[in-house]
Amino acid sequence: MKVIKTIEEMRRWSRSTRARGETIGFVPTMGYLHEGHLRLIREAKKHADRLVVSIYVNPTQFGPNEDFERYPRDFARDESLCKQEGVDAVFYPSNEEMYRPFHKTYVITEDLSEIMCGVSRPTHFRGVTTIVAKLFNIVQPDFAVFGQKDAQQAVIIKRMVEDLNFPVKIIVAPIVRESDGLAMSSRNKYLNSRQRKEATVLYRSLQLAEKEYSGGNHDPESIKQKMRRLIERESGGKIDYIEMVDAETLGAPRPGEGDILVALAVYFNSTRLIDNTILKIR
Amino acid sequence: MKVIKTIEEMRRWSRSTRARGETIGFVPTMGYLHEGHLRLIREAKKHADRLVVSIYVNPTQFGPNEDFERYPRDFARDESLCKQEGVDAVFYPSNEEMYRPFHKTYVITEDLSEIMCGVSRPTHFRGVTTIVAKLFNIVQPDFAVFGQKDAQQAVIIKRMVEDLNFPVKIIVAPIVRESDGLAMSSRNKYLNSRQRKEATVLYRSLQLAEKEYSGGNHDPESIKQKMRRLIERESGGKIDYIEMVDAETLGAPRPGEGDILVALAVYFNSTRLIDNTILKIR
Repeated sequence: MKVIKTIEEMRRWSRSTRARGETIGFVPTMGYLHEGHLRLIREAKKHADRLVVSIYVNPTQFGPNEDFERYPRDFARDESLCKQEGVDAVFYPSNEEMYRPFHKTYVITEDLSEIMCGVSRPTHFRGVTTIVAKLFNIVQPDFAVFGQKDAQQAVIIKRMVEDLNFPVKIIVAPIVRESDGLAMSSRNKYLNSRQRKEATVLYRSLQLAEKEYSGGNHDPESIKQKMRRLIERESGGKIDYIEMVDAETLGAPRPGEGDILVALAVYFNSTRLIDNTILKIR
Repeated sequence: MKVIKTIEEMRRWSRSTRARGETIGFVPTMGYLHEGHLRLIREAKKHADRLVVSIYVNPTQFGPNEDFERYPRDFARDESLCKQEGVDAVFYPSNEEMYRPFHKTYVITEDLSEIMCGVSRPTHFRGVTTIVAKLFNIVQPDFAVFGQKDAQQAVIIKRMVEDLNFPVKIIVAPIVRESDGLAMSSRNKYLNSRQRKEATVLYRSLQLAEKEYSGGNHDPESIKQKMRRLIERESGGKIDYIEMVDAETLGAPRPGEGDILVALAVYFNSTRLIDNTILKIR
């Protein structure tokens, strides 16, 4: 497995791989890999001749008061996990390599990035779309795999790829959960043991939504109210948002057509956790 | 020469061209080709095995009260000119092909797009960077040629390509002028005969700047004042702006280092003409 630290070398690797007629799969990550990432990597391996994983904590997707500095990092561990999974190349650039001091260009997705997570993190998604555009141009993959855990991000990336005609196929892989239901996240490590236990209420609130919906309650306000009450009763978490939106447009649900995304964000002290589920229209 | 109207077919053409190991040059245009465009095409032909010209009047780079509707179009003539010049493929998509009704994604370049032409055309450059990003992703050229006539656009495109790591080399070709000095532009056709004559004052004002500068006057305010007086004395044109900026950053000139861009925009009634020159630091 190759560890590549410069844009120029990454480009050369991709160019020669493509020249051999091999396809390239790509999993962009911020490192500190957990089972959720490994599933993305295994999904990608199914489809591609060669697999690139990027490990880069992207500063432009963190707000000024967010956890960029303390975001967990462990490259040695990430490297050995990637090796075990049969990754062909790890792209591990420095901040200096990725952003020059006079960086001016951003990719924005109007409306989609201003709602839900975009309310409390107003510059987050433009950081995400910008770094993904950069990585796509550097790695030039045939397809890239993202996790459904970041549901809004997945919608935004798919929209960016379609709107800007990136020649990259996007695959979204399912959420991976701990045995008690908590969605896997590098940020779970911030939780103390009481918070860790209470945080399972996020998944239970989503299960409640599924049960309500399949039981015939199609009133978003009523479902969200029940979720809110459950979370407030069973945890000290502070709800950032609970939303039910059209799973493709993130707009108002279209009664009878289009799946519905139920998504939420909850703070446990300064740790912000997100989770979601899709209500399928049959 | 192939005329290609769909994104899918353009992608296929590029993919098979690259698979044969041939390089692709690209000249994006809004059509109504004049000698200035033909020089860009000839410049591109020098460097590439295959040459693509796009002809597309991009709606997102026109403001609501600008000349999108009346912008001159003559595809039959453009097609025959491209054929004469030995172009391999003309990409000529419809608006429906290029922008879906729910298009949400834009590429922006902060600061650079808000000054000079960006003051009177606040959404112009994000339209330009967005369509160029789309065309690069569709055509996937090895290099693309732009004209120095649109100096601010050239700086912004180069910055976008560097910041987002597009694998495309940018070549900027010199301004082509009519025999009396007027820079060639599709918009010159809007001018009546009096305006057409008066419009030569733009180039003369730039020549004045060159003379002042080489004669030892390095005071931008004094030079701009002299240009302004000349234009106001010898034409009915209404000056939009006259700027002297660092040719690379579009910021304040750095005394003694970095070339200086002298750029201007002048309205002749509703027709807005731009022109520029570079003062070389020796």
